[in-house]
Parts: sequence; C-alpha cells; structure tokens
Amino acid sequence: MNFLSDNAYGAWPEILAAVVRCADGTAPSYGADDVTGRVKQRLGLLFERPLEAFPVISGTAANALALATLCPPHGAVLCHAEAHIAVDECGAPEFYTHGAKLIGLEGENGKITPAGLAAALSHLLKGFVHHAQPAVLSLTQSTELGTVYTPAEITALADLAHANGMKVHLDGARFANALATLNTSPAAATWAAGVDVMSFGATKNGALGAEAVVFFDPDDVGDFEYRRKKAGHLISKMRFVSAQLEAYLDGGWLARAAHANALARRLAEGLQSVEGAVLAHPVEANAVFVSLPDGLVRRLKDGGAQFYLWGPPAGGRSLVRLVTSFATPEADVERLVALANSEKMHRG
Amino acid sequence: MNFLSDNAYGAWPEILAAVVRCADGTAPSYGADDVTGRVKQRLGLLFERPLEAFPVISGTAANALALATLCPPHGAVLCHAEAHIAVDECGAPEFYTHGAKLIGLEGENGKITPAGLAAALSHLLKGFVHHAQPAVLSLTQSTELGTVYTPAEITALADLAHANGMKVHLDGARFANALATLNTSPAAATWAAGVDVMSFGATKNGALGAEAVVFFDPDDVGDFEYRRKKAGHLISKMRFVSAQLEAYLDGGWLARAAHANALARRLAEGLQSVEGAVLAHPVEANAVFVSLPDGLVRRLKDGGAQFYLWGPPAGGRSLVRLVTSFATPEADVERLVALANSEKMHRG
Amino acid sequence: MNFLSDNAYGAWPEILAAVVRCADGTAPSYGADDVTGRVKQRLGLLFERPLEAFPVISGTAANALALATLCPPHGAVLCHAEAHIAVDECGAPEFYTHGAKLIGLEGENGKITPAGLAAALSHLLKGFVHHAQPAVLSLTQSTELGTVYTPAEITALADLAHANGMKVHLDGARFANALATLNTSPAAATWAAGVDVMSFGATKNGALGAEAVVFFDPDDVGDFEYRRKKAGHLISKMRFVSAQLEAYLDGGWLARAAHANALARRLAEGLQSVEGAVLAHPVEANAVFVSLPDGLVRRLKDGGAQFYLWGPPAGGRSLVRLVTSFATPEADVERLVALANSEKMHRG
Amino acid sequence: MNFLSDNAYGAWPEILAAVVRCADGTAPSYGADDVTGRVKQRLGLLFERPLEAFPVISGTAANALALATLCPPHGAVLCHAEAHIAVDECGAPEFYTHGAKLIGLEGENGKITPAGLAAALSHLLKGFVHHAQPAVLSLTQSTELGTVYTPAEITALADLAHANGMKVHLDGARFANALATLNTSPAAATWAAGVDVMSFGATKNGALGAEAVVFFDPDDVGDFEYRRKKAGHLISKMRFVSAQLEAYLDGGWLARAAHANALARRLAEGLQSVEGAVLAHPVEANAVFVSLPDGLVRRLKDGGAQFYLWGPPAGGRSLVRLVTSFATPEADVERLVALANSEKMHRG
Repeated sequence: MNFLSDNAYGAWPEILAAVVRCADGTAPSYGADDVTGRVKQRLGLLFERPLEAFPVISGTAANALALATLCPPHGAVLCHAEAHIAVDECGAPEFYTHGAKLIGLEGENGKITPAGLAAALSHLLKGFVHHAQPAVLSLTQSTELGTVYTPAEITALADLAHANGMKVHLDGARFANALATLNTSPAAATWAAGVDVMSFGATKNGALGAEAVVFFDPDDVGDFEYRRKKAGHLISKMRFVSAQLEAYLDGGWLARAAHANALARRLAEGLQSVEGAVLAHPVEANAVFVSLPDGLVRRLKDGGAQFYLWGPPAGGRSLVRLVTSFATPEADVERLVALANSEKMHRG
Repeated sequence: MNFLSDNAYGAWPEILAAVVRCADGTAPSYGADDVTGRVKQRLGLLFERPLEAFPVISGTAANALALATLCPPHGAVLCHAEAHIAVDECGAPEFYTHGAKLIGLEGENGKITPAGLAAALSHLLKGFVHHAQPAVLSLTQSTELGTVYTPAEITALADLAHANGMKVHLDGARFANALATLNTSPAAATWAAGVDVMSFGATKNGALGAEAVVFFDPDDVGDFEYRRKKAGHLISKMRFVSAQLEAYLDGGWLARAAHANALARRLAEGLQSVEGAVLAHPVEANAVFVSLPDGLVRRLKDGGAQFYLWGPPAGGRSLVRLVTSFATPEADVERLVALANSEKMHRG
Repeated sequence: MNFLSDNAYGAWPEILAAVVRCADGTAPSYGADDVTGRVKQRLGLLFERPLEAFPVISGTAANALALATLCPPHGAVLCHAEAHIAVDECGAPEFYTHGAKLIGLEGENGKITPAGLAAALSHLLKGFVHHAQPAVLSLTQSTELGTVYTPAEITALADLAHANGMKVHLDGARFANALATLNTSPAAATWAAGVDVMSFGATKNGALGAEAVVFFDPDDVGDFEYRRKKAGHLISKMRFVSAQLEAYLDGGWLARAAHANALARRLAEGLQSVEGAVLAHPVEANAVFVSLPDGLVRRLKDGGAQFYLWGPPAGGRSLVRLVTSFATPEADVERLVALANSEKMHRG
Repeated sequence: MNFLSDNAYGAWPEILAAVVRCADGTAPSYGADDVTGRVKQRLGLLFERPLEAFPVISGTAANALALATLCPPHGAVLCHAEAHIAVDECGAPEFYTHGAKLIGLEGENGKITPAGLAAALSHLLKGFVHHAQPAVLSLTQSTELGTVYTPAEITALADLAHANGMKVHLDGARFANALATLNTSPAAATWAAGVDVMSFGATKNGALGAEAVVFFDPDDVGDFEYRRKKAGHLISKMRFVSAQLEAYLDGGWLARAAHANALARRLAEGLQSVEGAVLAHPVEANAVFVSLPDGLVRRLKDGGAQFYLWGPPAGGRSLVRLVTSFATPEADVERLVALANSEKMHRG
C-alpha cells in the first residue's frame, strides 16, 4: 500500500518498449536526433501551436532551467508558499538563477489568488534598485496540495503578471492529473490562459525520467540551451529521454492520469466516513490531504500503509498526504479505506 | 527637514581628519597596514575578547559576506520577513551564498520570537536533501522597524538556533543606536547573548563608508578573506576605511547614537498629540514608524519634510518612516512636530 | 560509418533488460532503493575498498558535481588544456563551483607532466588572497586525445598534487577503455595511484545515460548530496539509472571497451599506409587522431564516413578524430581503411 | 624606497579636500546626489560623447561588474594570460559572471595580438553549445607588464572582436599612465579605437578608492545597476566616492601620471648600466620589469628597497617589478639606481 508518491511507481511497458526500440544503430548526439525532433512536433500538435520543447530528466531541472531563463539574478519569482520550487528543491531555482529571490505567497488550498499576488507586487517597487524585481509568476498545476486551477483562475493571475511585466511559468509535474480533471484542451489550460513556459512532466505519470521544458513563445528561449548544457542536463544519448516522451504522448497519458485521480477520489470518499478524519483540501487530482488522529495514523502504518506526514503532528493530529498513481492497484485503495474504517467496525 | 535615512547625512569631522592623516607616505596594501591591525585590537578591547574583524565599505557587503561564510549554498538563512537582508539588498545574500534560501519570519515590531523560529524550523527537516538546511539565524539590531532586542531576547533565540546547529548573525548597521538604548556592554549585547558574527556598522552613524565584519570565534572565519577578495571588497588602500573605524571607536559613537535616539523619541512624543497619528511600533532607536492620514502626509511634505512611506497607502492612511541621525538638527525635529500639530491649532 | 563519437551508439541489450526488469511495482525514490544500494556495494568490490558512489545521468554532471565538492569558489582546478572539463562543457565546472578557475596545462598527447604541473603551481602563491588557490588536479583517463596514463604517471602527478594540498579527480568517461589497455586492476589504476574521486563513466561504453561519482575516501563526500539535489540531478526514479550501472558492471564492460580499442588500433594501422596520413598521437584507447590532407578528408566524407575535424584546417591539412565504440561494426572500420587507401590503388 | 605598487601611496590633498567638502549637510543616497551627477557629465566632456558612468570603490569591482554586464554565464572573456582579471582577482570575474570562462592569450610584453586573438577564436565554435561563447575581449591599458597599446593596435583587436560579435572592455586601472604616454585624446585612446566599456581607474594614481565603470554606449548598461547593488557595491554615501573622481578629473591627473612614468623611465635608464640587469619589457608606463641576478636582488632588499619578484626565481636570476607612482620621491629612484650600480663602483 504505497501512497508515498506517484514517483514510487515504475514505468509503462510502452515507454520501456520505446526506449528499447531506439537502442540499435547510431543517432546524432545531444538532441539532434530524429526522436527529439518528433517530440517537439508532437507537442506542437498537442498544444495546437508552434513551440519550442527541450527534454530533460527531472522536474527540478525543468523548473530551475525554465525559471533561470526567464528570471535575471536580480529578479523575483513569485509562487505559492508551499510550491515544490519553494520548498522541495533545496534551492535549485536560486542556484540556477544565480541568486534570484523566491517569494512565497499564501493562498488557500495551495492556490495563489489575484488579491494575494497584487498585495505582494505592491511591496516590490518597480525599478527600485534595492528590491528584487518581479520577473516570473510560477503556478503549479495540479498544485502541491492536490487542487487544480481552472483556466479562468490562471487567466486572472496571468493577466496581472503580464500587466506587471512578468512571465508566467507552469510547473506541470502533474499536468496530466490537472488536465484529466479540467476536461479542457491542453491549449486552453496553458498558453490560451496566459502561460508562457511550462515544465511538462511525464515522470510521475509513468516515464523513467522525462520532462519537457515547453516555450509557447520561441522568443522566450533565450540562452536556455546553453544553460542546459552548462548544468550537465544536455545528455549525449538524448533519444532515450525523447523516446519516453514520444511513447507517453502516444500512449494514453490522460487516461492513466484519470485513473490515478479516480483512485484519489475513491480514497477521499472512503475516508470521509472515518471518525476524526477531516479532508484538508478538495481532492481534484491524485492526492488526498487528510487530517487524522495520531492513533489512526499509527494504525494505518502498522497495517502496511506507506505515506508522508505533511508537517509536524500537532494537538494529537497529523496532516497526512496520500498520493495515487497510474499504477496504484485499486485493491490497495480499498484495503486502506477498509483499514481506516475498521476501528469503527470494531466498535460497532 | 531630512528624515529619509540616517545615511543622508555626511560624516564626523574627526573621521574626516583621520582619513586625511593617513594619506601621507606609503603603507602596505590590502589591509596589511597598521591602522587595520589597530582596528582589530580596538574592537577586541571593546568586545572584551579576542576576535577577528575585517573592514568593508557597505552594510550590504558586510551582511552578504558574513552570511556566505556561514551558510552553504544548500543552507537557509532565517530572518525577519522585513529584514534589510530579505527586502532591501536586491538578493545580495542569495548572490553571495550562491543560492541559499532566505526564509522570512513574521513577528511583531520587526522582532522574531522563539515560537516563530521554532515553528519555521519544524518544517525544515534536518538532513532531508530536498529541504534547504537551516544554517544561520540573522537578527537585526536595532531592527528594521526601530525596535531593539534585549540581550535576554537574543539569548532565547540564539540558544534555539545553536541547539539546531545554526550560527547567529547580527546585522548591526544600527548597532550603536541599539546599544545606546540597551545601556549594557557591547559584549553583553552580542557574543555573551549568543551572537557568533556581526556586521558592525559605522556608516549610518557618521562614517563615510565603513563597516566591520566581526567574528567572535576565529574558527568561523573560514574562507572569508577569499570571498571578500573575489567580490572586489578587499580594497587596496584599506587604511582609509580602517581609519574611519578607528576614529569612530575613539570618537563618542555611542553618544552620537544616543543623540539620534533622543530626537526620535522627541519626534514620537510630539506626534502623539496629532489627531489621527498612530505610532506603529515602540520607538527604541532612531526611527519612528507612524501611521498618518494621507492629508497630513501631504501637508508635511508640502512643508518641506522628507521621509519615506513604508508600503503603499491604504484606506486613506500611510505608514510613514522618520529616521533621525547623529547630525539631524534638533530644530528640524521641532519644526516637523510643529508642522504636524499646526492643523490642530488652526482648528482650535 | 559513424566515427563521430562513442556516444552515437545506443545501449547493450543487457542494460536495457535490466531497466525493464525494475519497472514493476514500487521502490523508494531518490536513490534509497535496493538497486542503488547494490551498485555502491558492487563498485566497492570492483575497487577493493569501502567507498561512496552516487549515480548521475551525464558525464558533465559527474565531473562538475565532483569538482564543486572538492574545490571552493576561490579555488583552482588544474587540468590539461584540452580536457573535456576545460573545453567541451560550456563552463559547467565554473558554474557548479560558483566561479572557481580552471587552469589549462599544456602537455604532449593530452597528458599533464609533473614538470608542467610544478611550473603552474609555482605561479599560484599559497595563501595569497589574490590568487585562486590550487584545490584539485583533474586527469582524464583515457585522455581527450586517446592516450592513457600509466599508474606510475598518475602516481607522480598525484603525489605532487597531494604535497600541495590538492585533491585528485579522474574524469573516467572512458575509464573502461583506459583500463582495458592498462591491464591492471581498477584499484591500481585509481586510488592506489592517488586518485581521490572519479567520474566512473558507463554511457560512452553502452549505457543509456549512467555515470557514478565515486569517492574513494568517504570523508570527501562533504555536501555532494545537497549539490546533486540542488542541481536537479537527484532523479526520483534513480533505480533506472542504477540498474544500468549494475548491468554494466555485470556485463563485460572491459571486454566491450577492449573491442573498441582493438578497432581503433586497426584503424590506425590501416591509415598508416595512406599517403599523407600522419598519426598525431599514440592510439592507446578508442580514438584515432590523424592528420590528413584536406582532399582525403573530403573523399572520406563523400564516401560516407562521419567524423569530426579537431580544430580548424590549416595548410591544406586537417586533424581528424575517429572514435570507435563497443558497437562499431568491424566492417565499418575496414570500409574506412579501404576508402582511405583507395586513391593509392587508383594511382597504382 | 617603496616600489611595491602604486597603491602603496596615499592620496592627493585636493582629493582629500573634496571629500571633506561634501561631508556637511544632507544629500540623496545611493548615487542620486549632485556630485555623482557631475562626475558623469565631467567624464562625458573628457571623452567627448554622451556616456553612462558609475562609481565603485575598487578596480576588481569595476572590472568584474563590467564583465558580468557584458558576458553571459555561458560566455568567454578573452584576455592576456597575465591580465589582472585572469591572475590577480582570485576569480572575481568568474564569480560575477556566474561561471563564464576566462581564456588567457599569450602575447609579448603583455599585449594580445590580432593573430593570437584570431587563433583563439578559431577554436571556439560559434553557436556550438558545448563551447563557451566568446563575448568580451578585455584589454589592459597600460598593460600588466608596463607597456601601452597604441590606438591603432586597439583598433585592430577591437575590429576583430566586433566582427565576432564580441564587446571590448578596457581595464584602465592605469589608464592615466597609458594616456600620458600616448599623448592622444581620451576619446582617441578608447571608444574611437573600439572600446565599448572601460574601468576608469583613479585609485592607483592618487584617489582613496575610486574607479568609474564607463559605458560609451548607454545601450550596454543593461542590468549593471542591479548587479552593483546585489554585490554590495552601491554604497549609501556615494558622494564621497564621486567627490574623489571629480577632484581627480579637475586636478592634473595626467600630469601626475606623467611624473610616475618619467620616474619609471629614469629607473630603467639607471638600471641598464648595471651588470647583469636585463630589461624584460619596454618601459612605457610606470612599471619597470627587469631581470636581475639574485645577488643583486638581495643587495637591493638589504639596502631598503621594496619590490615584488614577478614569478619564482630561476637559474640564479629573478624577474623584478618596480612600480612608481604619482607620489614616489625622485630621491628614492636615484637611491635605488645608485644602490644597483654600487657593486660596479666597488669593483672599479
């Protein structure tokens, strides 16, 4: 019963097969190969516009490289206070941007609001050399807390960012999960809503290690390719990363994310009947955040469930994160739900 | 009526004379001169212990170099959310530390509390490679909001920091103002309370441009001297900076800070009787933060008073910062007070 | 006829199979998995000593992370003027070390000599704050020019480096090719000869993208793990990189490198009889550097041979690099040799 | 007899007086003051064109900030192998540029030649992501070895640099000494010859610590002001630095440099008659490089002369550097010459 993270699971057979397929013969190195070219075309079709796309092997690399391309060293990246880039990348964006500042904004359910963004901007004087200059708004989709921005919400935030001369970055490590929920086109959920650059994730939804940095406006690419090289992220046999992305795009990525989402909803539903369990956030993607009594946490762990506490326990309760994936067995979900409800039954 | 900043004022005659005095003949370059050596001795006497001290020419340089020496690139510096290093140095600490993370803590009147520090630490898992690792607690004394930590308050914070393997840095750009208020020894206000390294400021209190980075434990110096050189802050004719510090230490630095503090208290007192004026923070050093109706703000400006708004106006009121210095004319203070009270008189 | 680079070729079937094998079920993320643990053990057995080993996905990442761990920002890395780290990584070491200096040393056949190293060190004053401080000697094995250091040569250089307080790094992107030539134990070729840290390459010899940074002394690891994370090189599904390394170590890596070396020797032999062809360096690994008349270069390219010119043509001649790999078809080698010799035959 | 460096000497009385003069009253901080504005105008008149100029307090800061503004992290700065930026700034340019590469070119008498520059450029492939991209040519005037580029020499180099898309930087720490020798206008020696940005030095020729970064094309300024702030080099009481520059420009800076140059020529002349003394480079500014037998070196030191060895002694001889300044007493020069010639007299 592994609910630690979607990255605890492996990879699709179709992705593995694609990697194996391109292992024969020779190919140009460092991304000049045919597969890499096709992935870019494929993403252009998916997003219904010309774009630039660059494969990398980790979400942190995708985010940090994208942000460094958009944000000068004296710039600021505004993001949610609980964003992955702010909390879980050990300062990768600060390293890659050469010391830009990440400014974390509060906001319910992991989502930034226009009012929160406006308030933060009102304290950063434009052109005032002592203040880090707002350069990028980074949104996470689905959010770190398992919620999803609607296109309208993104548009409102992106309009405000653009009006202040900022670019909009989308951390799409779980973009598939968000899109499966939104039921809109990839275009509508991204550039049409104001996103300039995104980290298009495939790893958490079933690749070995493959993400793409997608620039919806080729003018934004700037020196990205030099940055990627200088960081050791331009790998020589790039076709093996690109092949994953190609197979991912061809292989029902949205359906698999929808599966994970459905399991999360089932989990949430099943836990709602548990005494003392309180859902912390709406369950809109593949993660459930639920506050549980510490006794129940212990019992679930003893019963074989693996998951993370989200922050330190307090007042006899813990906030628990349960993540489902493309490959989480439905039986595991049912087992966890049963385990959580068992005390009630015993008592009954 | 210049209340913009203490750095709007010039320099003491004694400091200028000291600079002129050491302009003849030759001296070893890059800090190997006698004056620089004497300044270190002088600071050792002042703080009643052996120490290492390095002159630099700006507070931002002092802070950023000190922090970079103590905090690895994967580390975090915890400070007040309104600290100078967090807000007004355009990311200098992030640049100098090569991308460490500054984590801003809330706290009334510009002061961090042990509870606030403990809460922040509870979210940064020790040894967890995804989290920036808490490395330094940076306190500002006097604070950015014109208040002063007592030695006991510093001790409580420093003990918590040390217990978590962190070093304690003091941004003492206005240390003189704090000490003049505390009426304790420099030792009691710093290392005896748990401060490991401080930026000892002289510029705001009357030097041309002279600060010293003081390491109370020589083992903490590490590669500071290389960092200073690499940053272009090891100036060739260092004696001219050191001479300022020597004259500063010899020349009644505390009395002059006390003068600035007294003027600030007089300002606060004089403004309290003004209708609609609300002091925002206790006035414990040389700055007054007062919320004023926008009409009054306009009237003061029209009357020739210069000062900064602290954040954007809201609800017809503005938070105003008034700073006094070693050289602020007492008459200016009285004029401002009279100006602020004049409407009341008109009405009367 | 692809002689552009050994990274133009794909991957061993055994390595692909190993990746496929570990795709099922769940595993701890970020390198806490069993496969990663076994790789470390396996490398310890190979090198006959306890060590620390960390998988990464590119040679540039391995080199830059290793160097940054050993070399402070104010340090210098001494290497051959034509080393990959100096010429072909777009300044990755400078980025990762936060601005350390790479000092390129001349030396015949891509090899540094003790005299050259001593001369360079004599110009870098120890403890002199204006000079970058020598921190690391980086050797490439096999070298960028297809030659191989003997253990005795490494020992002489490493002794000099250690005597000057420096660490010794080995860029082993083609370590397999060097070892296949040396016919000594991995231990004798590395730590026993004075190497402290190495980039153990597998990619060029048949992995998808897998290298290991090996610390022979665990005390040297320092903050490596934080650096890897901060750079986005700690990938979530690390087992897929580690599985490649495990299969590599189990699967005749030396025999495959020996095959590549034999093809290079055959190429060199076959080109020696060509009029106007002059071998530039001894052929000791899997690369042939040969000076050819530009007419012959054209003819080879027209005949379908792919290879790089090594520097700009001059005086009607070009220096050509031909690289063989674990998978280069023997027939390609014979075809190239025949093509190069064909003019002679026409003339005859 | 101090011939260690021109920075061993103090400051002109006129410069000290100017600093004292602007210590009264208040002034806008951070360079918004009148004096700083006048210095920019004054430099514009001197160089006969509109320009942007920013005071800083050290030559290393001026160089590193200028280079970082012109050279991206993936760029290369080409300079002489013995340039101050390459050898004596502990990697400041690498730090400020966030890891750009300095490429040192050989060239007689400390001067780069067009052929040497062209050769270096031929090895750095344009647009090739693996190679640092040539971005800046940095020339030192007068050079590190006491020689001077003619405007024609600068033009030839600058034309080549511009044709390759590079900018041209001039390290003018001793620009006064060069100009005093050249007897051309400042314009002719700089922008008219192709210089884009210069570090205009005053410290070595008699300021306390004052240099100006001069951009001859305002479009090149880019984010310079943010970089200066972020580095702690935007000092609050900037007027005290600017006042030095104003007094310097008003006070016979060229005549004082000419004095230093004349003393250097006298030294060279006086040493030429010494047995075993061999001038290493033409004496065109205020430094003499002379190879002396070690016995003579010892005798000079015993006699009270202070100077640096330039590199380690070899073969019983040492290369010695003797620097003269605006304030070097003529008597010291004669004393050194007499001391050096005394053995001859003894023998006679």
